[in-house]
Amino acid sequence: MVDGSNELTQLKISEVRDSFGRQGLMTSIGASCKELSHGRCAIELPFSELVGQQQGFFHGGIIGALADVAGGYAAMTLLPAGRDVLTLEYKINFLKPAAGDRLIAEGLVLRMGKSVCVTRADVFAEKDGHRTLCAAMQQSMMAAVAAS
Amino acid sequence: MVDGSNELTQLKISEVRDSFGRQGLMTSIGASCKELSHGRCAIELPFSELVGQQQGFFHGGIIGALADVAGGYAAMTLLPAGRDVLTLEYKINFLKPAAGDRLIAEGLVLRMGKSVCVTRADVFAEKDGHRTLCAAMQQSMMAAVAAS
Amino acid sequence: MVDGSNELTQLKISEVRDSFGRQGLMTSIGASCKELSHGRCAIELPFSELVGQQQGFFHGGIIGALADVAGGYAAMTLLPAGRDVLTLEYKINFLKPAAGDRLIAEGLVLRMGKSVCVTRADVFAEKDGHRTLCAAMQQSMMAAVAAS
Amino acid sequence: MVDGSNELTQLKISEVRDSFGRQGLMTSIGASCKELSHGRCAIELPFSELVGQQQGFFHGGIIGALADVAGGYAAMTLLPAGRDVLTLEYKINFLKPAAGDRLIAEGLVLRMGKSVCVTRADVFAEKDGHRTLCAAMQQSMMAAVAAS
Repeated sequence: MVDGSNELTQLKISEVRDSFGRQGLMTSIGASCKELSHGRCAIELPFSELVGQQQGFFHGGIIGALADVAGGYAAMTLLPAGRDVLTLEYKINFLKPAAGDRLIAEGLVLRMGKSVCVTRADVFAEKDGHRTLCAAMQQSMMAAVAAS
Repeated sequence: MVDGSNELTQLKISEVRDSFGRQGLMTSIGASCKELSHGRCAIELPFSELVGQQQGFFHGGIIGALADVAGGYAAMTLLPAGRDVLTLEYKINFLKPAAGDRLIAEGLVLRMGKSVCVTRADVFAEKDGHRTLCAAMQQSMMAAVAAS
Repeated sequence: MVDGSNELTQLKISEVRDSFGRQGLMTSIGASCKELSHGRCAIELPFSELVGQQQGFFHGGIIGALADVAGGYAAMTLLPAGRDVLTLEYKINFLKPAAGDRLIAEGLVLRMGKSVCVTRADVFAEKDGHRTLCAAMQQSMMAAVAAS
Repeated sequence: MVDGSNELTQLKISEVRDSFGRQGLMTSIGASCKELSHGRCAIELPFSELVGQQQGFFHGGIIGALADVAGGYAAMTLLPAGRDVLTLEYKINFLKPAAGDRLIAEGLVLRMGKSVCVTRADVFAEKDGHRTLCAAMQQSMMAAVAAS
């Protein structure tokens, strides 16, 4: 993943980080926004009981939430300042049990249209520094006016 | 939704409730399994900051997680004792902002095959006793051996 | 499925039928629009070699196309005259092999928003008068200006 | 896309081509299998009225069918001889109107599991030698015994 965060304006970076900070779920579970560049965003989450399921893996709902957020902020980087995004829909395939110390969701914009933006996200589980692709998502976002 | 929980064996009901209780995410956010019958399951979640997004609605990731769980346990009611389910994939469309006091996800089995089960779930936001359909999900589950 | 076609204006019915008639694929394979009412549309297709796959069932791509069209025209019935629809995305689960004399796709609008419309469609294979649910679809449509 | 067709056994290549030839829909519309390698498959389709929609673009249903087939044969290249594939489900986002002389669907396996295989496919419209990404698909396939 290209780190092109220096190409984004400081205003856009602030907007995304502010928006992320207002997401009760994301901050509660300890997720953070690791990378941000034009059309790309990576979100990271350490493992905790709060985000587990009955077999000790990351919960599928959390994997979906992380992928959704990574795709959403990837889309937001390509919008003019003052615009927020709403998820219209997403589809996620679970490829392997998400076992590991942390989860990384990488979102990527496939197409930025006039009103709808289509993204993909890959979610990796990392264990002892080794990454395994554990989920693949495809998503539609709609541009909206940012919450003030 | 038909409450046919008396038709299910006590063993199956115990299995589903035990499995639900082991889901760190579901218990952490305060979700509970409200109804359980052949091929159907309803999950309920009261609003809290923990499950909110940046505009004060229920977070899309949580809506997805609830729908996923409702579909999964609906499938589990149709399996022999000692079998668990794994989500292969799901797709969710967000229809309206999920504003309200609580969220209700109703899962329904469309087709129970030999190894794959297809479900739908509708997610409602309830405010002052009035329900609004806010998301629609379609999902594939795979039967697996239950975690002991 | 309710046949409420008399509730639709003749203009809207004409628009949908004209649009259907301009679809080279639909007319080439022998599909027809059987029912049309507010938020609902049913499309029918007799079996022929043209629409088969390697095992003699209806081809999955054709099942998808029929579901897509049924959802699309269901959406179009709720739009003002002169508006066409574009498919943003759809997701289809195949439940059983589609074996039979004809295929029937029933589309239903779940939510008509300002710019995006979400639908579901069920696809049945009919053999000797008996219907089997063989596929389930969920779809997003966007309103557009009709082609003249 | 890597052309690694020489790495596949002649038996596997024959199996895929035989299976493709038995698909009434694919041969009727003039589609052909252009590339085949481990975990990858490209399908090509020239434009004709038969595959058009009401505005003169490639029909969405055909785009879906081509993507479905490309993903399916990509999966089949990784299976032992004598095994066929069945589509469990797919999800497709339409990114741009598919205007052009021909359509190319490129399928790629993301994960080959014991019974389920997950793929992605990108569909391009080609006009005067220039390719435009017009659709993105994500799909689950199941291994089955080949039709004799």
